[in-house]
Amino acid sequence: MNQKRLERVVQNMRREGLEQILVSSTASVYYLTGIWVEPMERMLALYLRADGTCRLYGNALFGLEPQPGLELAIHTDSDVPTAQLAADLLPGTLGVDKAWPSKFLIGVLEARRDVTPVLGSAPVDDARQFKDAQEIAAMQQASRINDQVVEAAIAALHEGVQEQEMAALVENLYRSHGADRSAEGQLVCFGPNAADPHHAPNATPLREGDCAVLDLFIPIHRYWCDMTRTVFFRRVSDEGRRVYETVLAANQAAEEMIRPGVPLAQVDRAARAVIEQAGYGPYFTHRLGHGCGLDCHEPPDNSSASPAVAQPGMVFSVEPGIYLPGRLGVRIEDLVLVTEDGCQVLNQASKQLRVVD
Amino acid sequence: MNQKRLERVVQNMRREGLEQILVSSTASVYYLTGIWVEPMERMLALYLRADGTCRLYGNALFGLEPQPGLELAIHTDSDVPTAQLAADLLPGTLGVDKAWPSKFLIGVLEARRDVTPVLGSAPVDDARQFKDAQEIAAMQQASRINDQVVEAAIAALHEGVQEQEMAALVENLYRSHGADRSAEGQLVCFGPNAADPHHAPNATPLREGDCAVLDLFIPIHRYWCDMTRTVFFRRVSDEGRRVYETVLAANQAAEEMIRPGVPLAQVDRAARAVIEQAGYGPYFTHRLGHGCGLDCHEPPDNSSASPAVAQPGMVFSVEPGIYLPGRLGVRIEDLVLVTEDGCQVLNQASKQLRVVD
Repeated sequence: MNQKRLERVVQNMRREGLEQILVSSTASVYYLTGIWVEPMERMLALYLRADGTCRLYGNALFGLEPQPGLELAIHTDSDVPTAQLAADLLPGTLGVDKAWPSKFLIGVLEARRDVTPVLGSAPVDDARQFKDAQEIAAMQQASRINDQVVEAAIAALHEGVQEQEMAALVENLYRSHGADRSAEGQLVCFGPNAADPHHAPNATPLREGDCAVLDLFIPIHRYWCDMTRTVFFRRVSDEGRRVYETVLAANQAAEEMIRPGVPLAQVDRAARAVIEQAGYGPYFTHRLGHGCGLDCHEPPDNSSASPAVAQPGMVFSVEPGIYLPGRLGVRIEDLVLVTEDGCQVLNQASKQLRVVD
Repeated sequence: MNQKRLERVVQNMRREGLEQILVSSTASVYYLTGIWVEPMERMLALYLRADGTCRLYGNALFGLEPQPGLELAIHTDSDVPTAQLAADLLPGTLGVDKAWPSKFLIGVLEARRDVTPVLGSAPVDDARQFKDAQEIAAMQQASRINDQVVEAAIAALHEGVQEQEMAALVENLYRSHGADRSAEGQLVCFGPNAADPHHAPNATPLREGDCAVLDLFIPIHRYWCDMTRTVFFRRVSDEGRRVYETVLAANQAAEEMIRPGVPLAQVDRAARAVIEQAGYGPYFTHRLGHGCGLDCHEPPDNSSASPAVAQPGMVFSVEPGIYLPGRLGVRIEDLVLVTEDGCQVLNQASKQLRVVD
């Protein structure tokens, strides 16, 4: 058990008035215990009480090992997985992690009519916003690797290469850098395809004058990197240049103002103002960014509606974009760490307009 | 809406005494509606009543389109996602899909104290066991592609190639065949690594005398293929040959007896008997197989404890194995379709012992 993290979670439980919670997400269990289990259809639940006691419920196939400060309660495939857990609960309110499969919650409720479930993810999710030194080192390292991968990918662009071939190349680059898993979902978008911020790589070939958006994200040693660079192939139109410089200015305006105490809604608005002033307001169609850590998308929200205020240890993306349907798209994304007196941009790959050959 | 599939699900609901169910898994919603949505953290729920009415609740970002026989109820990110759904429920028992995230079930229960949740996946999961003509065609095609991929992978084996390089090659082969996503989790195991049925590919190089287990699975046009072939590199030991011939005989004994009416527990036992008679009983450490379709692992269970009986339209794997710690492992896996009078093995890649160079 990581006692410092546990203490923060227990404080948050008291703040929320929760006497007991079930933590079930793979990332949150890892955050507190250092144990990584992907339970698939089987049951995993870390039961925490506000007095700091913790018990981990899991299937024998997970190979869980005891550790100081953590009791284990192991079941097998022939047991009712929720039986022991249900028996151990206090009567009353139970905080439940947001994505715990309903079959387990139903099992608990059928055994314990005196337990009332409420959403109980906030104590851990809030704690996870504040990265400690170990987490910061992991995220810095992951983003350093991402800088190398994006440069290698840009160097590999050539006439006629397909989006999906570039995606496969990125996959192999990540693999050679020890990524935790396949790079499912990465975005490689050429020309008009880039006007869809979620376009999936297909057989579209790269042609002269295309923009190429590379949005590359993967977990490395559990922590995610996530960056986007946009380059132009062989030439850039006046419109492409104008759009690029606007997005870059928005990215920089946002990053320059990040420091402890600044509301993230204000950071979003600063980037959005740059794009609106250039006349592209309606074409920046998503929020400025998202928190990032053990999950690619996690708190804090970095949007105009976000209640979050920048505080040291927060890591989130800054990713303004302009999407012109049928023509092109440009997005420039960095991960940013809030420091004591400002911020550290975790991605160092150049953001200057690049026309590659 | 696929009316024939819906009728089967509604029949199953009546059999289970369920007046109303929520179907939430991406695959099950697709099975009934033809709509594929990966909702991530957002809410997707297909609400079915035993009178055959259906309403699909989803986020505006899913881009859902109306279709005959299906009402839509769209919410946005600023709505309480469960509000409309909770208002529409009948009082009393509600069948809930097994993996629906707890946050939504909690939202429903907080709004409707007169609703009691029970596990409600069986009506759809049971129906999905019986593949119709369209599904059978998709699975035959996916397995034909898998036959080609495994042959290309075997042809690419060479001295010193690493497991992870072979995994990347398989990834690229699948991509060129139009697979739906990255081949995360595929198994490439050389020599002693193959004694772990779940060994993940790493930098282990292929050496003379190694066995090479290739367990390759991926969805293609939504339906999974899943096969395993084991070959030997340059030479095979007497033990390797004996183990291989035993596993092959077990695979064939199982496949030969599959026809409508045969309990799957009996099929598992037939394969297990061959391995036990050869003295390797303790080294066949898993069930014979699993149902396969829109999910890689789905009903029916093909194990000694399975209550399932083979019926036309079922597709499941037959994958006996022998694992000798520190030495080698052999597994031979096919997907099998139960037909009116027997079965069709969907994989045609040769199963004869192969020593490759």
